[in-house]
Amino acid sequence: MRNIMIKTEYDGTNYNGWQIQPNGITIQQKVMEAVKKLTGEDVTINGSGRTDAKVHARGQVANFYTQTTIPIERIPSAINHFLPEDITILEAKEVAMDFHARYWAQGKVYSYQVYNQRQRSALLRNYSYHFPYQLELDRIKEAAEVLLGTHDFKGFMSSGSSVKTTVRSIYAIKIEKGENSIWMTFEGNGFLYNMVRIIVGTLLEVGSGRRSIETIKKALELGDREKAGHKAPPQGLFLDKVFYPLTH
Amino acid sequence: MRNIMIKTEYDGTNYNGWQIQPNGITIQQKVMEAVKKLTGEDVTINGSGRTDAKVHARGQVANFYTQTTIPIERIPSAINHFLPEDITILEAKEVAMDFHARYWAQGKVYSYQVYNQRQRSALLRNYSYHFPYQLELDRIKEAAEVLLGTHDFKGFMSSGSSVKTTVRSIYAIKIEKGENSIWMTFEGNGFLYNMVRIIVGTLLEVGSGRRSIETIKKALELGDREKAGHKAPPQGLFLDKVFYPLTH
Repeated sequence: MRNIMIKTEYDGTNYNGWQIQPNGITIQQKVMEAVKKLTGEDVTINGSGRTDAKVHARGQVANFYTQTTIPIERIPSAINHFLPEDITILEAKEVAMDFHARYWAQGKVYSYQVYNQRQRSALLRNYSYHFPYQLELDRIKEAAEVLLGTHDFKGFMSSGSSVKTTVRSIYAIKIEKGENSIWMTFEGNGFLYNMVRIIVGTLLEVGSGRRSIETIKKALELGDREKAGHKAPPQGLFLDKVFYPLTH
Repeated sequence: MRNIMIKTEYDGTNYNGWQIQPNGITIQQKVMEAVKKLTGEDVTINGSGRTDAKVHARGQVANFYTQTTIPIERIPSAINHFLPEDITILEAKEVAMDFHARYWAQGKVYSYQVYNQRQRSALLRNYSYHFPYQLELDRIKEAAEVLLGTHDFKGFMSSGSSVKTTVRSIYAIKIEKGENSIWMTFEGNGFLYNMVRIIVGTLLEVGSGRRSIETIKKALELGDREKAGHKAPPQGLFLDKVFYPLTH
């Protein structure tokens, strides 16, 4: 038996998210079907975590156990052969038998694209949030600093998930201006359900002058979802990277 | 009567190109239908030129005549309201009655995205050419210099279009490396049918060591399509800009 870790990229536009479910087509399901076609095995693909419908990934990580003897360097192309064009395996690596993409994850990087022009973008419609209001980047950066570090992010979580603790650490937030977009990048040890999208929505409210930085501190202190901002839509969000202990 | 110049962005993935035709849905047709819904008028939309099926635009320019009294600053949103999400009017401007988007065009900028990684990209599948072979950028830049300036580009044109002359001037070629892609940008006074895509294919053959720079000179001298390289696929191509005399 071998334990294979894969790094996958996907365009979430046409999927009901990562995780297999009774209704709708999911990325996890497509990868499982592709591995089944390749190896004949019914494998479970353990992802590092879920992504919602329409959310993208440039570096989702997963693992699965297989008996196949296909050389590791041929695994990506071999699985890709059976995957639709909007899902691709970028890399594969053979890892220790006890490696698990979710339990071993130490941190993640998410990025979010805000398309900040008056008219909507035809080319970025599925990859950004069209936010046409004027934004003050310095205010956004100042607000982001309030969120840095270890906090109870209960106020920045959608209901519907069960977690032991709502305390998380954000190591870095980058706010970068492109030609027509603003990219926000978040690195942390883990993110609660919809946490990145709620943070983005909140930061945009600050940046457009509709909310003070003080209200972010309040939302953190009170742990009240109603005190945080709106949830930015899914299509601007990308899971860029998942970190694991260096031995893997 | 007013003459309105519009700058449009579109995702060409689901269209049969710009120009109206009996088979397939085109961007020109969609814009005409949207203007009709807005103003009730049957207008002709004059584009700066055609783009092929699956080719994109970030700055296609067109003009049309209308009796509508809608203020010019409201025209983009008003037309966008009737356009599908993959076409958008970015700007509108009232211009002199004799302005014509095609006849007055003085130059254009096209860019082309080459996705240069081993595995295909799920996110860029519709916006790049997956070219997995190792590329020497310095060789590509050297080859590009051969094409700069005024030449008879007959050898770099697909048949099927009628033009008075096949002489064109390329003012600038930029070759830029991104994280996973190479962007090639071409600025010139005009481009023949498929000229950018054939140049890109030729440059990639040089960059991957399958063709010498000498053969580009030969293809220019002989004006023989068979001496130039393959035609890169349409989905990597973007019409970025159309230039007009400064008075417009």
